[in-house]
Amino acid sequence: MPSSSQPFLASPNGGLPSSVLWAQLMLKDRLRPGDVVVDATMGNGHDTLFLTQCVSPGGHVFAFDVQAAALVETAKRVPAEMTTLVHSGHETMREHVPTELHARISAVMFNLGYLPGTDKTLITRTETTMIAVREALELLKPGGLLTIAVYPGHEGGAEEGRSIAKWAATLDSRRFEVQHLRPINRAAAPPELWVVWKRG
Amino acid sequence: MPSSSQPFLASPNGGLPSSVLWAQLMLKDRLRPGDVVVDATMGNGHDTLFLTQCVSPGGHVFAFDVQAAALVETAKRVPAEMTTLVHSGHETMREHVPTELHARISAVMFNLGYLPGTDKTLITRTETTMIAVREALELLKPGGLLTIAVYPGHEGGAEEGRSIAKWAATLDSRRFEVQHLRPINRAAAPPELWVVWKRG
Repeated sequence: MPSSSQPFLASPNGGLPSSVLWAQLMLKDRLRPGDVVVDATMGNGHDTLFLTQCVSPGGHVFAFDVQAAALVETAKRVPAEMTTLVHSGHETMREHVPTELHARISAVMFNLGYLPGTDKTLITRTETTMIAVREALELLKPGGLLTIAVYPGHEGGAEEGRSIAKWAATLDSRRFEVQHLRPINRAAAPPELWVVWKRG
Repeated sequence: MPSSSQPFLASPNGGLPSSVLWAQLMLKDRLRPGDVVVDATMGNGHDTLFLTQCVSPGGHVFAFDVQAAALVETAKRVPAEMTTLVHSGHETMREHVPTELHARISAVMFNLGYLPGTDKTLITRTETTMIAVREALELLKPGGLLTIAVYPGHEGGAEEGRSIAKWAATLDSRRFEVQHLRPINRAAAPPELWVVWKRG
């Protein structure tokens, strides 16, 4: 337990953590210096930076984005020696993460709400997301964690959420534990969180 | 963050916390010495004991059960001076918690799977649960937390879960934040967690 008098499992206003904050709390709690992880949705690089901090010193982050601008922005934020910024969609992560690191990745983080790709069709986005989450599970080491923040309020997010839900329900319970966290009683559709733990 | 190398937000096997463990982690994180709290489902007193530990020294726990045997068992576990064991259903909590403590309760914990009451009909249980959760929100102080573990796999638990879900969706988002945590991909129906935070 933290020694602070402030709650630890709380949003800045003292309320319940957002889905994104829940993901960060769980990752920060489990990651250790030297771990190798994947940021599947680089965007502006905030999560990439967060992950480098979780695995420093000695760790490494592979981060993916289809937009060149994302790599430019992220490179400004993160330590170059700790990161591999890949200009490619996350559905190619298995190809870009070196083979010797397969099944040795400590965590894969998806924050779909911030995924760039405005030039893609809705169907392509969901399809590539579903390829990527499957690849993520293969890359994870035993005991590794996959987090997926889904934004049902975004265009295409509702379909993406349904696809994730359908897929999550089919995961073999002998190999994976899965939890789903939903904010309730909100007019807008705030992000939901899916967490998958690969049994150790 | 905890200094231990063991994950903090984890079940004993290193996996994802159960719904009951999530509730305990959130309560332990937020409760402080001197707080006054309610155990709505005393049962064998394990949660009552847990809550006394969270609010010690100086705090107090009001615990409810309809079965006299629950009070006998719980009295063996918990410090008498920190507890008021009430031989009455949790739907009477507003009546049994002194008026001067209304809207000053830091947390109310429901663990419906362990609620005794085998002599009650299904309908009565859901009805009294729904009265009790409404009363719980009135007793909570601003910034207080309500946790409800629901067991859809138990007899009556599925209906109870649906009633909680329906009610939770209607809570005024200006007054309450609500989250729902569900284990996925399990053959049996493990407990789900509802968490309500009363805005501070």
